[in-house]
Amino acid sequence: MNRRTYALALALAGSTLFATGCANMASGQPAAAASRLVIQVSDGDAAKWNLALNNAKNAQKEIGADKVNIEIVAFGPGIDMLTSDSSVADRVSAAVKSGVHVSACENTMAAQKLAKADMNPSTGYVPSGVVEIMRREQQGWSYLRP
Amino acid sequence: MNRRTYALALALAGSTLFATGCANMASGQPAAAASRLVIQVSDGDAAKWNLALNNAKNAQKEIGADKVNIEIVAFGPGIDMLTSDSSVADRVSAAVKSGVHVSACENTMAAQKLAKADMNPSTGYVPSGVVEIMRREQQGWSYLRP
Amino acid sequence: MNRRTYALALALAGSTLFATGCANMASGQPAAAASRLVIQVSDGDAAKWNLALNNAKNAQKEIGADKVNIEIVAFGPGIDMLTSDSSVADRVSAAVKSGVHVSACENTMAAQKLAKADMNPSTGYVPSGVVEIMRREQQGWSYLRP
Repeated sequence: MNRRTYALALALAGSTLFATGCANMASGQPAAAASRLVIQVSDGDAAKWNLALNNAKNAQKEIGADKVNIEIVAFGPGIDMLTSDSSVADRVSAAVKSGVHVSACENTMAAQKLAKADMNPSTGYVPSGVVEIMRREQQGWSYLRP
Repeated sequence: MNRRTYALALALAGSTLFATGCANMASGQPAAAASRLVIQVSDGDAAKWNLALNNAKNAQKEIGADKVNIEIVAFGPGIDMLTSDSSVADRVSAAVKSGVHVSACENTMAAQKLAKADMNPSTGYVPSGVVEIMRREQQGWSYLRP
Repeated sequence: MNRRTYALALALAGSTLFATGCANMASGQPAAAASRLVIQVSDGDAAKWNLALNNAKNAQKEIGADKVNIEIVAFGPGIDMLTSDSSVADRVSAAVKSGVHVSACENTMAAQKLAKADMNPSTGYVPSGVVEIMRREQQGWSYLRP
């Protein structure tokens, strides 16, 4: 039992009403939490980019595209996946259309002199790919590094 | 906290015994939770397969083979680790004998026209390697990607 | 939840105010928990070593070097990152000076006949890199595998 469920148990001691709201949270993983996936792309390797896109598609197929939140975070040599002339640019655009979020690391872009004009128009941006991944894991997202 | 201990906690709520029991549990990770490890194999690279098998063996050695749950999930180009003619087939069979679970991704098998007859007889199967890994992380397993 | 908020929660137990506080805790991670990062280095590839060091630097820059705990764990072919004649030895020493912890896997060292005398003087040691990573994830650290 972690500190959070411990606090919840304490809260339950005093309040029946509150117990109803918390019971679901304490009894296991909420269904929603099981369907959040952050996929790291940090290799400058088109085979890995395709695998990451396959992984996202697969998770959507198995869980339902409307039931899973997926974010692909590209940084380091992986940033080239998200340029407008990337070999997988069309697949990236299709993934975004299907509901996948795609985030380019602005730290990496600055280091590689890439401007937003160089990037796939469907790309989103985060100040730091590493910190974005840390944050997602802390929020309970599953991590996948193809 | 599982449903049984949750119910127990509810039953004990308000008592001194409960507070004492919870303090211990709240102060750290339960021992069991520390010993679940899902290892991802997604590279078509025998060196990585050997490293994954070494990692599993190592965790068993340090923690005790009977005290740690380990699952190796192979998908994408990593699926070849689990074919019957894989260069590490004998090591895979030995790992399974030692208590490691080995799961092949059926999505990948379909894409690569692999049938169960092509696979190491000690292999288990999951519909989607990616979703299996997501699920394990959500259940609190540690993730390792050699 | 840290000890201070824990005490606060106790004080508020049974009140409506507490339920509100609980809702916040359930909906996200406390800020402190977001700033622990374990970085795995298991490739014998200097480009990956530099990426790992860049990732650590980046997280320090974004979060504040005094507000984030970072541990780089090297094992398998990644152990060479931490030898005294590693091509990134100076960067490793600088990272440690900046507050990053660097841990060499003693299992790997034994397998590769490496003694502490062969290693970067700023290196720390763990009996098993894999178990160290498992432990950190169980403690709530974010995992990054560059």
